[in-house]
Amino acid sequence: MREEDLLISLAQIVGQSGVLSGDVEKQPYLEDWWGRNRGSALGVIRPKSTSEVASVVALCQQHGVAMYPQGGNTSVCGGAVPPAESTGIVVNLARMDAIIDLNPRDNSITVQAGCILGRLQEAAHSADRLFPLGLGAEGSCQIGGNISTNAGGTAVLRYGNMRDLVLGLEVVLPDGRIWNGLRTLRKNNSGYDLKNVFIGAEGTLGIVTAASLKLFPRPPNAITALVAIPELEEALTIGLDLGGIFSAELTALELISQTEMILVAKHIPGTCCPIASESNWYLLVELASFSSCEILADRLGEYVGPKLSSGIARDAIFAMSGAQRQSLWRIRHSVTEANKKEGMGLSHDIAVPIFEVATFVRRSGEAIGRAYPRAQIVVVGHVGDGNLHYIVMFDHANWDSLADKEGTRHAVGHIVYDIAVELGGTFSAEHGIGALHLPEMQRYKNPVELDLMMQFKRLLDPANLMNPGRVLP
Amino acid sequence: MREEDLLISLAQIVGQSGVLSGDVEKQPYLEDWWGRNRGSALGVIRPKSTSEVASVVALCQQHGVAMYPQGGNTSVCGGAVPPAESTGIVVNLARMDAIIDLNPRDNSITVQAGCILGRLQEAAHSADRLFPLGLGAEGSCQIGGNISTNAGGTAVLRYGNMRDLVLGLEVVLPDGRIWNGLRTLRKNNSGYDLKNVFIGAEGTLGIVTAASLKLFPRPPNAITALVAIPELEEALTIGLDLGGIFSAELTALELISQTEMILVAKHIPGTCCPIASESNWYLLVELASFSSCEILADRLGEYVGPKLSSGIARDAIFAMSGAQRQSLWRIRHSVTEANKKEGMGLSHDIAVPIFEVATFVRRSGEAIGRAYPRAQIVVVGHVGDGNLHYIVMFDHANWDSLADKEGTRHAVGHIVYDIAVELGGTFSAEHGIGALHLPEMQRYKNPVELDLMMQFKRLLDPANLMNPGRVLP
Repeated sequence: MREEDLLISLAQIVGQSGVLSGDVEKQPYLEDWWGRNRGSALGVIRPKSTSEVASVVALCQQHGVAMYPQGGNTSVCGGAVPPAESTGIVVNLARMDAIIDLNPRDNSITVQAGCILGRLQEAAHSADRLFPLGLGAEGSCQIGGNISTNAGGTAVLRYGNMRDLVLGLEVVLPDGRIWNGLRTLRKNNSGYDLKNVFIGAEGTLGIVTAASLKLFPRPPNAITALVAIPELEEALTIGLDLGGIFSAELTALELISQTEMILVAKHIPGTCCPIASESNWYLLVELASFSSCEILADRLGEYVGPKLSSGIARDAIFAMSGAQRQSLWRIRHSVTEANKKEGMGLSHDIAVPIFEVATFVRRSGEAIGRAYPRAQIVVVGHVGDGNLHYIVMFDHANWDSLADKEGTRHAVGHIVYDIAVELGGTFSAEHGIGALHLPEMQRYKNPVELDLMMQFKRLLDPANLMNPGRVLP
Repeated sequence: MREEDLLISLAQIVGQSGVLSGDVEKQPYLEDWWGRNRGSALGVIRPKSTSEVASVVALCQQHGVAMYPQGGNTSVCGGAVPPAESTGIVVNLARMDAIIDLNPRDNSITVQAGCILGRLQEAAHSADRLFPLGLGAEGSCQIGGNISTNAGGTAVLRYGNMRDLVLGLEVVLPDGRIWNGLRTLRKNNSGYDLKNVFIGAEGTLGIVTAASLKLFPRPPNAITALVAIPELEEALTIGLDLGGIFSAELTALELISQTEMILVAKHIPGTCCPIASESNWYLLVELASFSSCEILADRLGEYVGPKLSSGIARDAIFAMSGAQRQSLWRIRHSVTEANKKEGMGLSHDIAVPIFEVATFVRRSGEAIGRAYPRAQIVVVGHVGDGNLHYIVMFDHANWDSLADKEGTRHAVGHIVYDIAVELGGTFSAEHGIGALHLPEMQRYKNPVELDLMMQFKRLLDPANLMNPGRVLP
C-alpha cells in the first residue's frame, strides 16, 4: 500500500482530525521531553475509541506497518517515540481520556488509557478516595503508559507498583481483536492471569485501551520527617524499624545522599537543607494515618529520640503542616532538575534486595572511584523498596573533556549494573527497558527467561509490528 | 516405552524410594480428602530436588507421559489428583520441603514448593515476621499448591491473594528446562512479567519447584468482633466504613448468614452464637495493629455505638483475649464441617463487585427459592473482597429423594453463576478450576480470553502432558 493510501485509509477510521502527517504537527510526538530520542513516523494517529484502535491495528497488521503506542510521552528510556528512520505510525491515545466509571462503594475507577494520571488522582480525591500512584510526570503521563511501564514512584512501599493497582484491562491485541478484561473483582481464579502479561510489556504485546483500577480510603492526616543519619547501614535499620512500628502507615521512605542535598540547595532557588548538622545520608519519611498528626509525631519521636541521643541519627525535623511538608518534598522532587544543572548525571535505576543496599553503595562507590576519580556519586531513591537512582555525576567541564562519551556511559553502566545483578538485583527497577536498555537485556537476563519472553512476543505479535525494537533485543 | 521400563528409568532419577507403584502405596495420592475424586496413575513420583523434577519432566516429555503435579492434595475442585483411567504419573513435591532462606532484614523467605504452609507461617513467626496467607488446610497444604492455585483465605483483604505475596519463582517448564526466577526484589521492570503466568495456572504450564515470598512486620495486637446486622446492605456499608476508618488495620471482614450460624451451633459441639439477638446477618471483623487492643476497641466502639443506638446493628461483641477471639473464629472455621453434617451443600465460590453483593444475594435467593423451595440458603464468605461461598443446602432426606443429583448440581450452579457473571462477577473466586469447573470455563469465559489461554497452553505445553484436562476445556 502506498503511504498516501495508508493515511487515507487511517483517516477513514479515525477521521481527518485524528491523522497528523505534516512534519510540524507530528514533531511533538516524535521527540521525547529530554530531547535525547528523536524518531520518525509516517503519521501520528489519534483514535477516539477502542474500536477505532482495533481497526487501526487490523489495518496496519494487514499491510505490515509498524505501530508505536504512545501515552504522555514521558518515558526516560526512549520507549515512547519511534526509532529514527521508522516508516510506521505512532498510535497516540490522548483523545481517549474518559473516566468511564468511578464507584466509591466498590473502591474502583475505570478509565480510558489516555486519561492523565493527575486527573484520575483528582477524580478519586473528589470522591474522598485515594489513587496512590504518584510520579513526577503525573501532570502529563497517561494511565495507559503507567500500566504499560508498570510505573513505580514514592508510594510503592505502601500501595505497590502500578501492577498491584490494576483490577482489569482492555487491550487491543496485535491481531486487531479486542480483549475486554475490564472488571473490578478482587478475586477471580478462573484460568490464567492475562492482565499481568500486558502490564509492563511497554506496548509490545498489544495496546492497552482502558483499565479498572483500585481506589483506597484516603488517610486524612500525614506527617513528613527528614532524619540525618551518617551511616547508611544505620539508615537502613531505621527504615526497617519504622516499617515494623508503622506498618501500612509508613507511606514513603526515601533516601537522599548528602551530595544530592548539596546539589539541590546549589541549583534550586529557595531550597536549602533544613537540617544544620552535616550527614552523609538523609531519610525522608512519610506517615499517613487516620490517627492525628500529633499521635503520629509522638510515636515517631519515641522511636527517633533514642537514636538522636545515641548519635546514630544526627538530627531530625518533623513537618506537620502542609506547607512544611511540601518544602521537604520539594527537595526530593527537585533532584532531577538540580542534577541536570550540575552536569551529566549518568543515572542507574537499580534495585537490590533491601538488605544489600549498603553493600551495593559501598562496592559501586569504590569501583566508580577507581575508574572515574573525578566523578561524584549522587544517590536518591525509594530505599524502602531497595530501589535507588544511582547517579554518577560528571560536571560539565569533566563531561565535555571526555573523548568517548557513549563509551563512558556504557562502561559506567557495566560497573554499576554488574554489582547490582551480582547482589541479586536488577538494572531496571521502575523505568523499564524502552529502546535504551536492550544491551542490558542481552547481557544480564537469564537465557531461559529471555527465551520465554521471545516466545510470548512471537506468539502474540508474530510479524513484530507492535512497538518493534523495544523491550526485547 | 513399556510401563515397567518407564518406572525403572524414573527410579534411576529419583531413587527407588521416590517411586510408588503398588496399588496400596499409591492410594493416598490418587484420592482427594473429600472422596469425590478418585484417579489412577502408573506411579507416584517423589523427587527430592529441582534437577530431579527437571529430569522426570524431560523423560515424560520424551515418552509422551502425562504428568500430574501434586502438593498437599487439598484441592476442592479435583485439581490435585489424576483422572480415572490415567496412565500418567503423579509428581508429588512433598519431599522438597526445605526452607532455603529466611531473611528478616529483607522481609523475605525462600522455600521449596513442598513446604507446608503451616511450617512456613511458624518459621516466619519465629523470626518475628508474619506470612499472612491463612487457610483451613494450612496444616497440610503446600506452598507449591498455594501458588499454583493462587490461594485466597481470610487475610486477602489486607495482604492480597497468594499472587501478591510471591516475589520470585523457580519453575520446571514442560520441556524440562528450569526457569530460575527466584529473587526477592520489590521492583524489577526488565521485560515481561513471567511469574504471574505460572501463579494460578494449576500446574498446567509447568511445575513450581521453589518460591521467594514476602514477609511482613507482625502486628502485636488484635481484636475480633462479631456484629449482628439484620439488613445485608447495611452490613456492606458498615464493612466499607470500617475499611475507611481502619484502613490496613482491618485484616478480616467475613460475612456469616443466620442460617449458617444456626447450622454451626446445631452440629459443632461447644459452639453457639455468642449474640442473643437474632439477625439475618453477622459480620466477623478482625483488627490487627501496633496500637493497643484497648485503643482498637475504643475506636471500633465509637463507630459501632451509634449503629447500635439507631438499630442498624442489633448487637455486637468484642473479643480482646486470645481465647475469646478463638471462640469467634471457631464459628467461622467450623462452617465446612457443620454444612457437611447438615446435608448436601452445593457450594459456589463466587465473587462480584463489592457493591453488588446484596443484589447478588437477593436475586440468587429469589431464583433458588422458586426452583428449589425446600433448599436452604447458607452464606459465608470474604465479603470485604466481594467473595462469597454461596451454599444451596439440601438436607439429607431432600437430597436422597432427588432423582437426578448431577443434573440438580448443574442446574443450581447455572442459576447462581449466571447471576454472578451477569453482575460482573466470576464463578470461581479463590478455589480455581481443577477438573470440576471445565463446563463453566466453556460457558462463561469470553472467547478471546479463552483463546489467549489456549494459545499460552499450546505454546508452553504443545503435547498437552502437563496436568492435562485441568483448567482448560
